[in-house]
Amino acid sequence: MNINILLFQDFETLDAFGPAEVLGRVEQFSLRFISKNGGLIKSRQGIMVMTQPLDEADVNAVLLVPGGQGTRELVKSESFLQKLLNSASQAPYCLTVCTGSALLAATGLLDGIEATSNKKAFGWVMTTGRLVNWIPRARWVVDGKFYTSSGVSAGIDMALGFVADMFGIEKAENIAHDIEYIWNRDRDSDPFARP
Amino acid sequence: MNINILLFQDFETLDAFGPAEVLGRVEQFSLRFISKNGGLIKSRQGIMVMTQPLDEADVNAVLLVPGGQGTRELVKSESFLQKLLNSASQAPYCLTVCTGSALLAATGLLDGIEATSNKKAFGWVMTTGRLVNWIPRARWVVDGKFYTSSGVSAGIDMALGFVADMFGIEKAENIAHDIEYIWNRDRDSDPFARP
Repeated sequence: MNINILLFQDFETLDAFGPAEVLGRVEQFSLRFISKNGGLIKSRQGIMVMTQPLDEADVNAVLLVPGGQGTRELVKSESFLQKLLNSASQAPYCLTVCTGSALLAATGLLDGIEATSNKKAFGWVMTTGRLVNWIPRARWVVDGKFYTSSGVSAGIDMALGFVADMFGIEKAENIAHDIEYIWNRDRDSDPFARP
Repeated sequence: MNINILLFQDFETLDAFGPAEVLGRVEQFSLRFISKNGGLIKSRQGIMVMTQPLDEADVNAVLLVPGGQGTRELVKSESFLQKLLNSASQAPYCLTVCTGSALLAATGLLDGIEATSNKKAFGWVMTTGRLVNWIPRARWVVDGKFYTSSGVSAGIDMALGFVADMFGIEKAENIAHDIEYIWNRDRDSDPFARP
């Protein structure tokens, strides 16, 4: 199964590459790095990544959408949101990290769906999807085919949770151990939510 | 101050990009992604990253060396090790993640120095530098200008520790909070060391 990781200018590095580390260790998954038009995409922290165009990507792949500063402009881009809507609609699973859920919310696909996001940007994120059932206290949320995580590092915990849901918890625990990562495996345990 | 992150074919994604997330949030740091010859470098998890040639890099920059499968060949490459030796000798600080310490050890620069590495690869790593004072139980180790961390995720903890040493612990805590990361701030606390 392919995993399409959708990059854009000013995406947050760890939002995309934390989950890439976890999902890239699953033999059944093959990672693809894509963007709206393909070519080199620069992360907020300055990493230049080569990507394939979204139009050439496998439409049956799992879709992962990071967040980051770049989402602030993209939520206003009709052409981007239309492509994201097409892609996320067809994906068997759609995962977002941090403010990636704002992009997905702006397509309307999360209307009536439970979702979470970055805790510092939560007020803004809620404006991008007023019909979404936003969950302010959650490390990550699963509702149907949609996995949405809190900010940045929470994407690693969610990716491990996704692996656990697909292949069993032992598989996820083995990956966490191999990368010497202390997995916050309880998706309701959120030390960064407001009290 | 520049931070040179030295990439090579089959580097481990999170070894490099976990610390990049942390260090890229420090206003005083500017990240550079470099490799021996420059050009596109592919991580073990398939990320294609554009790099600058090492020969064109700032010699006064902090050097960060990730680990990964690619180190197994590189420890035998005299031309790579000579360039690494030159670069690490001049760097004001040299940080390694995971089996990145095997590369540094193979240059001889860690002889008589305390260092650590990935816990699953520890036996092999020790063979790359028999005069290194290897510390089997440590999240990360600081000895003079050398920071060496345990496997993969430990690089994030070490990078935060480096920020704390440079700018104070509050700065590191703020970054950890902003990326919703539960920082293991005690470098002697190592849940992945053998009992």
